[in-house]
Amino acid sequence: MDGDGASSTGATPSEEMNGTGNLMDFLDEPFPDVGTYEDFHTIDWLREKSRDTDRHRKISIKSKESYWELIKSLLDAWSGWVVMLLIGMLTGTLAGVIDLAVDWMTDLKEGVCLSALYYSREQCCWTSNETTFDDRDKCPQWQKWAELMTGHSEGPGAYVLNYFLYVLWALLFSFLAVSLVRVFAPYACGSGIPEIKTILSGFIIRGYLGKWTLLIKTVTLVLAVSSGLSLGKEGPLVHVACCCGNLFCSLFSKYSKNEGKRREVLSAAAAAGVSVAFGAPIGGVLFSLEEVSYYFPLKTLWRSFFAALVAAFTLRAINPFGNSRLVLFYVEYHTPWYMAELVPFILLGVFGGLWGTLFIRGNIAWCRRRKTTLLGKYPVLEVIVITGITAVLAFPNPYTRRSTSELISELFNDCGALESSQLCDYVNNPNMSRPVDDIPDRPAGPGVYSALWQLALALIFKIVITIFTFGMKIPSGLFIPSMAVGAIAGRIVGIAVEQMAYHHHDWIIFKNWCRPGADCVTPGLYAMVGAAACLGGVTRMTVSLVVIMFELTGGLEYIVPLMAAAVTSKWVADAFGKEGIYESHIQLNGYPYLDVRDEFTHRTLATDVMRPRRSEPPLAVLTQDSTTVEDVETLIKDTDYNGFPVVVSRESERLIGFVQRRELTVAIKTARQKQDGVVSSSVVYFTEDNPQVAEACDPQPLKLRRILNLSPFTVTDHTPMETVVDIFRKLGLRQCLVTRSGRLLGIITKKDVLRHMAQMMNQDPESIMFN
Amino acid sequence: MDGDGASSTGATPSEEMNGTGNLMDFLDEPFPDVGTYEDFHTIDWLREKSRDTDRHRKISIKSKESYWELIKSLLDAWSGWVVMLLIGMLTGTLAGVIDLAVDWMTDLKEGVCLSALYYSREQCCWTSNETTFDDRDKCPQWQKWAELMTGHSEGPGAYVLNYFLYVLWALLFSFLAVSLVRVFAPYACGSGIPEIKTILSGFIIRGYLGKWTLLIKTVTLVLAVSSGLSLGKEGPLVHVACCCGNLFCSLFSKYSKNEGKRREVLSAAAAAGVSVAFGAPIGGVLFSLEEVSYYFPLKTLWRSFFAALVAAFTLRAINPFGNSRLVLFYVEYHTPWYMAELVPFILLGVFGGLWGTLFIRGNIAWCRRRKTTLLGKYPVLEVIVITGITAVLAFPNPYTRRSTSELISELFNDCGALESSQLCDYVNNPNMSRPVDDIPDRPAGPGVYSALWQLALALIFKIVITIFTFGMKIPSGLFIPSMAVGAIAGRIVGIAVEQMAYHHHDWIIFKNWCRPGADCVTPGLYAMVGAAACLGGVTRMTVSLVVIMFELTGGLEYIVPLMAAAVTSKWVADAFGKEGIYESHIQLNGYPYLDVRDEFTHRTLATDVMRPRRSEPPLAVLTQDSTTVEDVETLIKDTDYNGFPVVVSRESERLIGFVQRRELTVAIKTARQKQDGVVSSSVVYFTEDNPQVAEACDPQPLKLRRILNLSPFTVTDHTPMETVVDIFRKLGLRQCLVTRSGRLLGIITKKDVLRHMAQMMNQDPESIMFN
Repeated sequence: MDGDGASSTGATPSEEMNGTGNLMDFLDEPFPDVGTYEDFHTIDWLREKSRDTDRHRKISIKSKESYWELIKSLLDAWSGWVVMLLIGMLTGTLAGVIDLAVDWMTDLKEGVCLSALYYSREQCCWTSNETTFDDRDKCPQWQKWAELMTGHSEGPGAYVLNYFLYVLWALLFSFLAVSLVRVFAPYACGSGIPEIKTILSGFIIRGYLGKWTLLIKTVTLVLAVSSGLSLGKEGPLVHVACCCGNLFCSLFSKYSKNEGKRREVLSAAAAAGVSVAFGAPIGGVLFSLEEVSYYFPLKTLWRSFFAALVAAFTLRAINPFGNSRLVLFYVEYHTPWYMAELVPFILLGVFGGLWGTLFIRGNIAWCRRRKTTLLGKYPVLEVIVITGITAVLAFPNPYTRRSTSELISELFNDCGALESSQLCDYVNNPNMSRPVDDIPDRPAGPGVYSALWQLALALIFKIVITIFTFGMKIPSGLFIPSMAVGAIAGRIVGIAVEQMAYHHHDWIIFKNWCRPGADCVTPGLYAMVGAAACLGGVTRMTVSLVVIMFELTGGLEYIVPLMAAAVTSKWVADAFGKEGIYESHIQLNGYPYLDVRDEFTHRTLATDVMRPRRSEPPLAVLTQDSTTVEDVETLIKDTDYNGFPVVVSRESERLIGFVQRRELTVAIKTARQKQDGVVSSSVVYFTEDNPQVAEACDPQPLKLRRILNLSPFTVTDHTPMETVVDIFRKLGLRQCLVTRSGRLLGIITKKDVLRHMAQMMNQDPESIMFN
Repeated sequence: MDGDGASSTGATPSEEMNGTGNLMDFLDEPFPDVGTYEDFHTIDWLREKSRDTDRHRKISIKSKESYWELIKSLLDAWSGWVVMLLIGMLTGTLAGVIDLAVDWMTDLKEGVCLSALYYSREQCCWTSNETTFDDRDKCPQWQKWAELMTGHSEGPGAYVLNYFLYVLWALLFSFLAVSLVRVFAPYACGSGIPEIKTILSGFIIRGYLGKWTLLIKTVTLVLAVSSGLSLGKEGPLVHVACCCGNLFCSLFSKYSKNEGKRREVLSAAAAAGVSVAFGAPIGGVLFSLEEVSYYFPLKTLWRSFFAALVAAFTLRAINPFGNSRLVLFYVEYHTPWYMAELVPFILLGVFGGLWGTLFIRGNIAWCRRRKTTLLGKYPVLEVIVITGITAVLAFPNPYTRRSTSELISELFNDCGALESSQLCDYVNNPNMSRPVDDIPDRPAGPGVYSALWQLALALIFKIVITIFTFGMKIPSGLFIPSMAVGAIAGRIVGIAVEQMAYHHHDWIIFKNWCRPGADCVTPGLYAMVGAAACLGGVTRMTVSLVVIMFELTGGLEYIVPLMAAAVTSKWVADAFGKEGIYESHIQLNGYPYLDVRDEFTHRTLATDVMRPRRSEPPLAVLTQDSTTVEDVETLIKDTDYNGFPVVVSRESERLIGFVQRRELTVAIKTARQKQDGVVSSSVVYFTEDNPQVAEACDPQPLKLRRILNLSPFTVTDHTPMETVVDIFRKLGLRQCLVTRSGRLLGIITKKDVLRHMAQMMNQDPESIMFN
C-alpha cells in the first residue's frame, strides 16, 4: 500500500478524444503501460468501466465497415461465454483429478491395491461388492502395508507397522506440499479466499492467480489433503478456479487488458469453484454473490451460473465418487422432523456460533503469533510438526484416521437396514421383519456407545488441531474441518435425543410426536444441521450456506432446521464480533478491503477525514499555467502521491482537474526528448487556450491538457462520511477530492477511508451490535 | 412526473446537528412532512439512507441509558425479521385462499358438488378415488349444470346448456372483477410487476400498495382467473405480496417513515410472492434479485429468503393442491435426456424467443391503441367482450376449457402406466407386462392424434387471445399463459420426436441412443422446456427462470435442456429488441425507471445533457446573502422546480448548497407567522456567520442555513455521461449539479438522464445489438 497516498481516476477515453483537449501535438502514440496498475495498488472501477465502454464503442463502429469486422465484433460479444465454458470445463476437470488423486493417496497411507496400483481402496474393492465400511477390509485385492510386508494383517506388530507407515506417508506428503509451495509458488498457500475477496474488490496482487500458482496449488492441494491434516479442499478449489479464470482471461484482450472485466470473470470462476467443491451450482453462484464478489452485475450472475453448471457437469462426467452423484455428501432421510426438535437444532446453532468465535479468535491469535515471532521463520518445520501430531493422534481413532469427507459422509448418513457401520449398531428387535426404510427407533448397542466415545475424542482433537492448521504454508480450506466439527457434535446430540426419545416415550415433549416403535429421530439430520451451524459460525455465510445444504439433500423438507441453526449460529457468532474468518484474515494481512456489509454509522464529515490535516503542510497541487517543468519534477521527486490536483491558481484554489503521477512523468520525459525548446524553465500549461508566448527567446511552453482528467470526483467538506463511504464502495473510487464552494480543500483516498473506519470502530465498538 | 424538474437531496441529519448550521432560532420543532415525498415523485436514496443511519444512531445512543431503551433497541433491530415473518405468513395464507377459491369457482362454471356446495370437483370426488382426468366425470357427487337442471348429462341439449352456463359464469365473474377494480381500486389491475419495479427503483405511487388494493386485487384475482380468461395469478401474487409488505411496514416506524427501508421490505415481499406462486423459494429470491429489485443489499437477500420460506411453508400448511407438495407443477421423469435432443430443445428456445417478441410487440401495440383511442374509454365493455370471445372459443376444446394451470400440469406429466388422459393414449404391446415406470416408447393411438389437433388449435387460440388479454383492467399475470403456450408447443414437438424415434430407429441420429423398446423420449420434458423458453422470451428472466424450473423438477438432471432453451430464447428475443414485457410496459407508461441492465455507451458529456441549454434562460438560483423573502416567493411561484441551488453571488456563481422547494416554502411561511420583523424585504441568509444588520429599522434577516443541504452532489461539465448514468443508478440520486472549476453551470435530473438515454437509443438503435 506504500505510495498509494493519492492517485488518479485517469483521463477517461471520452475526454481524450472529445475535441476539447486536443492541444497535445507530440504524443501521437499512447503512453506505454497506460491503464495498467502497479502491484499492490487499487484499481479504479469507474475508469476501467469507461475504458471498456470505449473499446466496445470502437468495435461496434468498426463492425459496420465490413463483414469481417462484424464477425469479429460478434466473436468479441461471445467471448464472455467462451471464457465461462472453458473455465467450467477446466475447473471441473481439475476438481475431478484432485478428487481421484486424493482418494488414491489417502488410501496409500494405509495400504495398496494389488490388482492395480493406481486404484483407491474403493475402486479396488469395487468388484467384491463389500464396500460398506466394515466389510471393506475383507476385500482381498486390497492389502494393508503390514500385510503386504510381513504377511500378517493382525496383531500388535502389524498395527505398529501400519501406524508407523501412516505417519511416515503423512509426513512425506506434507513435506512435499510445503516444499513445493515454498520453492515454486508462495501464493499457493492458505485457502485463498481472503485474497480473492480483496482482489475482486479491486486490488492488484500480481502472480496470485498466475499459472504457477494454479499448477502448484493443484498439486500441493492433493498432497495436503492426502496427508490427513485437518483441512479441506473447498476453499483452495475456489482459488484454483480463479486461477483458471485468470488463465483464460489472458486469451481475450477484452478481459486481459481490463482489470474490471477480468474481475467479472473471476467472480464467475469462484462460483464454478464452489460448484465443483460441493456439487452445488446454485449454491456456488450465491456463495460468489454473497461471500466473495464485490462488483456483481446481473450479467455476471447469469454467466456465473453457466460456468458453475458446466463445471458441475464436467465433474460428473469424470465421476470421481463413482456414484454418478453430483454432490459430495448425498443424503436421503426417510422421516420428517418435528417442531420439538427445533430446540436441539437451535442448541447446535449456538454451538456453531461458539465454535466459530473460538476458531476465529484462536486462529487469528495463532496467525498473529506466526507473523510476529520466530515461528514464522520455520514454515516447513511447522507443517512437519503439525502433520506429525495430527497423524500420531489421528491413527488410533477410526473416525479421525479416515479422510474427513468420508467421516462427514458417514455422520450424515441415516442408518438404513443394511448399514453395517459401528454408528448403526443398534439392538434390533428380533421379532421384527426388517423393512429397508423407516426403521423404528431402537436402543443403542455397544457399537454406538463406543462410537460416541471415539466421536467425542475426535471432536476435541479436530477443534484444537484445526485452529493450528489453518494458515500454514500449504493449501488449506476450512469448510470441511468446520463441517466435521459440526457433524460430530450434531451426531452426538442426535443419538442422545434419539435414545432419550426411545427410553422416555412418556415424557411430555416426546409424547406428541414419538410413539413407541416409530422412527422419529434421524441422527444424520442432526449431523447435517450441526455442520451447517459450524460452517456458518466460521464463515458467516447465510443464504449460500442454506442453499448448498439444500442442494446436498435435494429437499425443501429440511430447510427449516438448517435455517434455524444457521441463523442462530450467525447471531451468536456476531454477538462476539462481526467478522467472519475471511474478513479477519483480510484485516490481519492489512489488505485494503472495503466491506460492503459494514455499515458506517458515525457522524463524521468529509472534512474530518480529508488530508491535509490542520497540522500538515498544504496539499501538493499544480497550477494550470504557472508551474514550470522543474517545479513539477521536484514535486514528483519529493512526494510519493499517485497524482496531483490541478487548480486555476494558488490563490483561488479552484479545482480544474487531476493529473496522474505516472502519466505526468512519462509526458515530461517524452517532451524533453522529443519536443524542441522544452527545458526546465518551460511552463506547463493545462489550459484549454493556446498559451501566449511573449517573446521568441522564452522557453517553449509544455501543453499537457491531454493527460488532465477533467472530471475528478469531488464532494464538499460537509458531506457526511457515511455518504462518502457509500460513494467509495458503490463507485469503486481510488480517491475523491474535497471542495468547498469550488475551492479545493483536500483529498480523501480509499486508504484514508479504511483508516477512518477502523478508528471509528475502535472508538465505539458497541455500536456494531445494533447493525 | 410534472414538477420533478429540480429537487433536493435534503439536509442530511448530520449537518442539521453538527454544530455548523445551528443559526436557526425559531424552528425548534421539525417541519411537518419533512422527509415525505409527493405522489409520482422520485425518492432520494442517499437521503433515505442517511436518515436511517441517524435514526439508528439515536437508538443506539439511547439504548445505553436504560434497560427499557435497550430492549426497545433490540426490538427495533428485530423488527425486520418480524415483518418478514408476518409477510410470509399473510402471503402464504392469501395464496392458499386464492388457490382454493379459484379451484372452486373454476369448477363452478361447469357444475356443482352436491355433497358440499363449497367443494371443488377434485375435493368432491376425493372419496370416489377416480381423480384421473377421464374418470372424473363419473364421480356421482359432482353434477354438471345440465344434469342438475334437466336430469340429462348427455346429448346436444345438455351440451348447449352447459356451454351457455359456462359462458354466463365467465361473463359474470369477469364483470364482477372489472367493476370492483373500477369502483374500489383502479390500481388493482394488470400484473403490477412493472409498477413494482418502478416503485422499487425509488418512485412514489401512492395507494398502489394500499390496503384497498390488497383487498380488491385478491378478490378480483380469484374472479379473473376463475372466469377462464387467458391470464395467470403469478404476477398479481407478487403485487399482493408487496401490498402485504407495505401493510406490515406501517406497523413499524423504522419502515413506514423511511422510503428506502420500505423498499428493502418490498423486495423481500416480491420474493415471497413468487415463492408461493410456484412453490419455489430460492427461485423467488432470485426473481426478486434479478427482475424486480433495484437496491438489494445482502441483508435483504437473507431476509427475502426467510420471507420466501415462511410463505412457502404457510402455503404448504394450507395445502390447497391436496397433495402436500409445495410446487405448482410437480413432475418426475424417469428417463434421462440425450445429447441429440438438444436440437429440438434449442428449436423450442427459438420458438420461445419468437413468441416473446410477437407477444411484446403485439401487446404493446394493442395497449398503445387502448391508451390513445376510444377503446380505453370502455374498459368494462372490453373485458366483457374478451371474456365472451374467450369463453365461447374455449369451451369446445377440452384443453382450453379447463384452467390453464391444470392444462400445463397435464402437459408436463410423463405418461405413466396408470395415466388415462387422452394424451397418453398410446398403442400398448399386448404381450408386454406393464411396469409402473419406464414404459418404452410406443406408437401413438388415435387419442394422441386427436389431442395433437386440439392442442394445435389451443396453441393458436392462446397465442392470439393472450396478446389482447394482458393489460385489461383486471388483475392479469402472464406467467401462466406464456408457459401454456410453450408447454403446448413443447408437447407437440415432444410427441413428434417420440413418434419419429419410434418409427425410425434406424436413422443415424436415433441409432445411438434409442434402441427399439427403450423409453428414450419424454414428451413432458419437452413441454417443460417449451414453457421455460416462452416464459424466458417474454420476461427475459434467466437465472431465476432456470432455478424456478429446477425447483419444480427437483433435479439437476434437466437443467441443461432448460438452460439451452432459456439462453436461446433470450438471445433470439434480444435480437429483436432488448426489452422484456415489464420494461416495455414501464416505457409505455412513461415511468421514470433507470434500468440497471441498459448499458450507456455513447460519448456525450454532462455538459450536453445539463439544463439550462444554450437557448434557455439561466438556472434559477438563490444567492447566499442578497435574496429577499419576496424574491424567493416570486421564484417559488414562477417555477415548478423541486429545489434551488444556492450560490455565493450571481457574479461568482460559486455553489455553496442546495435548498428544497418544499422546505423553503414551509420555512418562509413559518417565519412570517412566528418571527417578528420578517417581512417581504427581509434578506434571506444562507451564510454561516451572523449577518450584520446595519440599522435597527432595517427588516430582520431570515436565517435559513439549517435547511440548506451543504453537500449537494456535483460533477464537472466534462464528466462523460456514462459515468453520470452510473452515478445516478448506483447512488439513486434525484439530481446532480454540474460545475466547472467551482462555478455552477447547470443541473441534471433523473428525468434529464432518462430523456437523454431514450434520445441516444433512438439515434443509434443498432448499438444495442452488441451489448
